[in-house]
Amino acid sequence: MNSLETVVSVDEMTIEEHDALFVLTELVRTGRAQTRSDLGRLSGLGRSIVTQRVEEALNLGLLEEADFGVSTGGRVPRTLRFKYEIGTFVVVEFGARNLGVAVTDLAGKIVESVHENWDITEGPEKSLDRVVKMASSLIKQHNLPDVWAVIIGVPGPVEFETGKPVAPPIMPGWNGFDIRGFMLNAFGAPCWVDNDVNLMALGEQAVLKATNQHGTAADNLLFVKVGSGIGAGIISGGKVHRGANGSAGDIGHVAIAEESKVVCRCGQIGCLEAIAGGWALARDGEIAAKESKSPFLAERLKTRGFLSPIDISEGANSGDAYCIEVVARAGRMVGETLATLVNFFNPGMLVVGGTIASTGDLFLAAVRQTVYRRSLPLATRDLRIVPANPNHEEGLIGGAALAQTEIFSRSHMTKWITESSPRAILGH
Amino acid sequence: MNSLETVVSVDEMTIEEHDALFVLTELVRTGRAQTRSDLGRLSGLGRSIVTQRVEEALNLGLLEEADFGVSTGGRVPRTLRFKYEIGTFVVVEFGARNLGVAVTDLAGKIVESVHENWDITEGPEKSLDRVVKMASSLIKQHNLPDVWAVIIGVPGPVEFETGKPVAPPIMPGWNGFDIRGFMLNAFGAPCWVDNDVNLMALGEQAVLKATNQHGTAADNLLFVKVGSGIGAGIISGGKVHRGANGSAGDIGHVAIAEESKVVCRCGQIGCLEAIAGGWALARDGEIAAKESKSPFLAERLKTRGFLSPIDISEGANSGDAYCIEVVARAGRMVGETLATLVNFFNPGMLVVGGTIASTGDLFLAAVRQTVYRRSLPLATRDLRIVPANPNHEEGLIGGAALAQTEIFSRSHMTKWITESSPRAILGH
Repeated sequence: MNSLETVVSVDEMTIEEHDALFVLTELVRTGRAQTRSDLGRLSGLGRSIVTQRVEEALNLGLLEEADFGVSTGGRVPRTLRFKYEIGTFVVVEFGARNLGVAVTDLAGKIVESVHENWDITEGPEKSLDRVVKMASSLIKQHNLPDVWAVIIGVPGPVEFETGKPVAPPIMPGWNGFDIRGFMLNAFGAPCWVDNDVNLMALGEQAVLKATNQHGTAADNLLFVKVGSGIGAGIISGGKVHRGANGSAGDIGHVAIAEESKVVCRCGQIGCLEAIAGGWALARDGEIAAKESKSPFLAERLKTRGFLSPIDISEGANSGDAYCIEVVARAGRMVGETLATLVNFFNPGMLVVGGTIASTGDLFLAAVRQTVYRRSLPLATRDLRIVPANPNHEEGLIGGAALAQTEIFSRSHMTKWITESSPRAILGH
Repeated sequence: MNSLETVVSVDEMTIEEHDALFVLTELVRTGRAQTRSDLGRLSGLGRSIVTQRVEEALNLGLLEEADFGVSTGGRVPRTLRFKYEIGTFVVVEFGARNLGVAVTDLAGKIVESVHENWDITEGPEKSLDRVVKMASSLIKQHNLPDVWAVIIGVPGPVEFETGKPVAPPIMPGWNGFDIRGFMLNAFGAPCWVDNDVNLMALGEQAVLKATNQHGTAADNLLFVKVGSGIGAGIISGGKVHRGANGSAGDIGHVAIAEESKVVCRCGQIGCLEAIAGGWALARDGEIAAKESKSPFLAERLKTRGFLSPIDISEGANSGDAYCIEVVARAGRMVGETLATLVNFFNPGMLVVGGTIASTGDLFLAAVRQTVYRRSLPLATRDLRIVPANPNHEEGLIGGAALAQTEIFSRSHMTKWITESSPRAILGH
């Protein structure tokens, strides 16, 4: 018995006339069937209906005939292939101060991605206008087909069902904004909005699954981003856990064990982020620079007038003693909280990313040490603690994976097929 | 788009010849179809195949004809009903010092349950022999039909796929024991083993779903048991989250914020359980009794020679000032950890149960106060913090719910049908 079966409702198990076409194309898309005879065997549908529906799928451009397959006697069958080039996904990732846009095919393969500095506090209209401009330019440049889906990652909680940000602390003006409506208007395509760290978690999962390195470990995965703020993306049983209000993973403001009088930007005292987040390290770094405790940061502060998390990270990488010390300390603090979460969640894989974490092994080693010391042996027996992919594209890859999940759902594809070819449901 | 669709593989969407019978009985069992004409419409199967398969289901005893339905013109249709009385579930719940056994019908309705004191350290053979004796006696007494499934809840981590306890700290002798094999041998039925708190979480979810009180809040539910030890059961997106090693929810040994030099029974310092667990309160209570700080506990200690968590709980309920103070303090300590978990997991429902929590509003009020003070506003916006059902049957109810999920899976029922009636798959 596999886990799928336990959640399958009977509705999902029946092929009705109007979605045989969907079932057949899905069998090809997911690599389970390559020939018409595979399709007949796997779907339980008769030969003539398979032939008719495949013909329709070819006409719609969903499938194409590929090389000849291996004959098992008789005529050599032609293999079928899902035409991933028929549509385009637009995937967008907003950070607090940067913006990434990718265009991919329907397999989630990135055709091109561009990144630029962008301040999310510019508000939704201006920010999304910029996205539309960037994506449209990429689409034109590569002469890409219709946009099938738009995915937007934002650095704040999102009500996934409506795609609306919910009281996002660092995104003034975005609360409740209809991002879906905006994108539908711009691209004529459905849009899904998610928390940025959720997309990163999905991206790491997709890469791990594709390379099949760690069995089922990626089915229970935590992605922890230690950038300006601190947040986590949670994969439970292969699926994103978003929680009752879409705020799951919001661990920046958990109370830390250490005595602290530091007031967080949220107003509370003793928040993890107020001690170990990038914004806190930059804040402390400015004082250290002024007090001549860090030559590296003093130089940066003189040149630029302020410090940002990346300065701390670069300082640590360049060997500045102060920066090394605070990054290691941040690693231990984050590790304390993660130890609690490892006991609670028992992940198979803990991925650590973000500006502060991208300091070679320094931050990671501190996290590892603390988690292994403070978690139960069973919870860490098979746990792998690894750095995030260094290419910083995991959010875009995760967005494309989310687009596939949403687009290749039965209801969505059946609707698409119906609209593209009314014949398909009007009986044969 | 609902969440089911995204995880449905194409395999699950096709009716093949051999499981049409399963699909039809499932449609009746889940209340979606009541008549043969409903079945035809919902399954997409032709009238003659529906008639044949329903006939077989009637012969197998899975379905029965019930009252006449409402006619929509023509002959009045006879309604069909799934025969929940055709089989029996045995559900067992081991605590550290008690044992509950229930027999239920296939709808999970408890026919009778019995509870007795039992020490889990007696080891697996003796303990499971006792279970077989108790269950057999109940089955005989009520003249119940075949056992279809056995569910066993144990107070320790379990590898769910094999049903084997994994290094359970308070269950000496049980590590790796083949509980499934033992029960298969005793009842000739498949067995699933799970952590006791997971079953309690499932039970609360089942009750909340049945009474449909709180919408989808129960889909993301935490059940926290504060008994002798402290543990949590986690429901994510409607399903139990067991983690990579089956140890998810094991929060008794997370580090607490408060300075502590108390050594836990796990050997670490500063564990939640070593301060707020029932065993720790009983340990401290003995000292308090000897130092005459608690008349209630001194009396108990004199009578019995030792104290257990229930004494602390009863002391608090009887108004003993010392007990009230330590229970409230335990509530605050547990609340601190839960605040972190609420930020991380964003549950819609937090259910608090166990001996120490069963002290009226005292413990719960302390938990509530701490969680609301220390969690993010969004994470607690719709959060309900409620006491566990006072009947202490939630583990048994949850076990019966788990039995249903496992037994009424496609693969399991198809196998049952095949074995019960070879005709069913040999084509008509």
